[in-house]
Amino acid sequence: MKKISRRKFNSRLGKGLGGAALLAGMPLSHVTACAPKQKDSLGIALVGLGSYSTYQLAPSLQDTQYCHLAGIVTGTPSKEKEWAQKYGIPSSNIYNYENFDSIADNEAIDIVYVVLPNSMHVDFSIRAAQAGKHVICEKPMAMNVEECDAIIQACEKAGVKLSVGYRLHSEPYTQEVKRLVREKTFGDVHYVSADAAYMSRGNPDQWRLDIKLSGGGALMNMGVYSIQSVIYGTGENPISVQAQEFSTRPEYFKQTDETITAQFEFPGGAAGNIMTSHNASANRLYGSCDSGWYELQPANHYGPLHGRTSEGEFSFPHERQQKLQMDDFAKHILQGTKNLVPGEMGKRDMIIVEAVYKSIAEGGAKIKLDLGEMGLS
Amino acid sequence: MKKISRRKFNSRLGKGLGGAALLAGMPLSHVTACAPKQKDSLGIALVGLGSYSTYQLAPSLQDTQYCHLAGIVTGTPSKEKEWAQKYGIPSSNIYNYENFDSIADNEAIDIVYVVLPNSMHVDFSIRAAQAGKHVICEKPMAMNVEECDAIIQACEKAGVKLSVGYRLHSEPYTQEVKRLVREKTFGDVHYVSADAAYMSRGNPDQWRLDIKLSGGGALMNMGVYSIQSVIYGTGENPISVQAQEFSTRPEYFKQTDETITAQFEFPGGAAGNIMTSHNASANRLYGSCDSGWYELQPANHYGPLHGRTSEGEFSFPHERQQKLQMDDFAKHILQGTKNLVPGEMGKRDMIIVEAVYKSIAEGGAKIKLDLGEMGLS
Repeated sequence: MKKISRRKFNSRLGKGLGGAALLAGMPLSHVTACAPKQKDSLGIALVGLGSYSTYQLAPSLQDTQYCHLAGIVTGTPSKEKEWAQKYGIPSSNIYNYENFDSIADNEAIDIVYVVLPNSMHVDFSIRAAQAGKHVICEKPMAMNVEECDAIIQACEKAGVKLSVGYRLHSEPYTQEVKRLVREKTFGDVHYVSADAAYMSRGNPDQWRLDIKLSGGGALMNMGVYSIQSVIYGTGENPISVQAQEFSTRPEYFKQTDETITAQFEFPGGAAGNIMTSHNASANRLYGSCDSGWYELQPANHYGPLHGRTSEGEFSFPHERQQKLQMDDFAKHILQGTKNLVPGEMGKRDMIIVEAVYKSIAEGGAKIKLDLGEMGLS
Repeated sequence: MKKISRRKFNSRLGKGLGGAALLAGMPLSHVTACAPKQKDSLGIALVGLGSYSTYQLAPSLQDTQYCHLAGIVTGTPSKEKEWAQKYGIPSSNIYNYENFDSIADNEAIDIVYVVLPNSMHVDFSIRAAQAGKHVICEKPMAMNVEECDAIIQACEKAGVKLSVGYRLHSEPYTQEVKRLVREKTFGDVHYVSADAAYMSRGNPDQWRLDIKLSGGGALMNMGVYSIQSVIYGTGENPISVQAQEFSTRPEYFKQTDETITAQFEFPGGAAGNIMTSHNASANRLYGSCDSGWYELQPANHYGPLHGRTSEGEFSFPHERQQKLQMDDFAKHILQGTKNLVPGEMGKRDMIIVEAVYKSIAEGGAKIKLDLGEMGLS
């Protein structure tokens, strides 16, 4: 069990009333309890306490500045107790999937982060929005474009903010690539290659291998990061895609894609080439431009990442990507800064995912895409 | 003009009679002129004195141990004089394209290296074989598979050795990758990616951009190296290919392919992904295996190359790849060592090249390949 300091624990409990004052050292009794002050840290409830919540999101929320772990939603009673102890979560902020909707009445929860299997994203994102909570929906946004639309509409209707759990837009190496591309440091991009793959040998009953829960294999998991990479690696949305699928372990990958490659045309003239796999290790983004190149390798795991260009290496201090991601979304809500990962970005990627599967079904045929500026940030 | 030492110059002239004795310090008059001794260095004639001969092959032949620059064949009279002076080539070893066949009578020439535009490979390789000379045919071997067959048959009929100008099979980084794959240091290969591309902005009238002389663009030039890479990167011949073409500068690439991507299936289960281009810079080979990975980056330019695996970097002293290549072929002739790049390897790659173009013509359809062990080394 990770110990948290009493000061940190207290500051969290106090924030709903007057965290800023408390942090400044004033005793709570001196704060006048009048009109609710704007919060300086938003309470996040994690929905689904699988490995990503356990090993990435919850630890990251120990370091966030503009948000904090306030609640949990889980279907496993033993996890309620464990998390309550570990992170000091009061029982009033602990929900299960049945009583989840009553979260609407809980002012300690500002943001609901949906970390469930893909098939459950649409339901819980919409219910979170209807409960008046801002929503982070883990990637891929949903099972298909139709579900993405439903989530976006629900959030618009409820007047809440929506983000997708892409953790790299707040990450400095990725931001550096975006800057190099945006400022045309090396001129126009001619070719961009992105591989996002890891070897899966684990439990054959995991939800990622179940098409009803995942909606797809490598492409729906790491593949959306390789799609993201070639988009921010060119600064443009693709105008066409051709794709191929490779299957060599059908006894393990019974229902979901094992390895997929896809090629993209971009309006500025760049060619894009991606690979995603649950049967290989590869983690790289490379762009060749008029007068130089950039490379991230690794490019999309939890870090530290490594970057270089034709002019030399570049580096940034390592921080948890999820910390940066959640703080950026909280700042968007609190301060009106840009939403780096709006819902339409997740929807755009799902349009591309559907086009990739369509090309594969049509033997590698070219599928045209008409995305305009959708989801570019 | 590069000066060559008198000793080196003499040793070359003397080799036909008794180079070994001369090198050992014995005056020539003491050597009995009886049955011709086996040469210890073979005379090479370069056919075509373009930039590859000028800046790569001729300088490399200053360092070779088992062969030497003995003659030239050129259509440009000014080059005759220039090369004769620079490399001490006697006029008896200088030919043009008209009198080339009389090279049959020249005992100083053992190997003819055809370094002409692709469309001329078949004619001069066959004529060299018919003149009784061993043949190195620059890559790509010819314009199509039919021409490769004609060259192979001519060499077999004439009883001469044949090699293709792939310079990497003698190169230590490439040999290290072949060893890692052969010995399964990291287990089976699951994914292999090879990019071979450079930016072409030069003279739009160069032969590489003329389809009648080149037979194709990036694929026929660097593309064969990316094909080679995924083959020695897996140790197998592919069993299928799908391919895509990208065209963004048709005003420059009027007749030849600009950028091509292709995906291969291998019998052992690996997926291969290549890119070749005259409109981008990329130079890399990466393989993901059961328990580790290897990478060469750069992988296929003239070096120095750079290699690493999941266990760390590896390096070798840099030598001219062409020196190693030509020495290996000369040793094959002189000592019966293995021909690292036999003609059937060049033919195999041309079968793959034709399948790539066929897939592109069919909109990215999967083309099956039935290569067996052809050309594997």
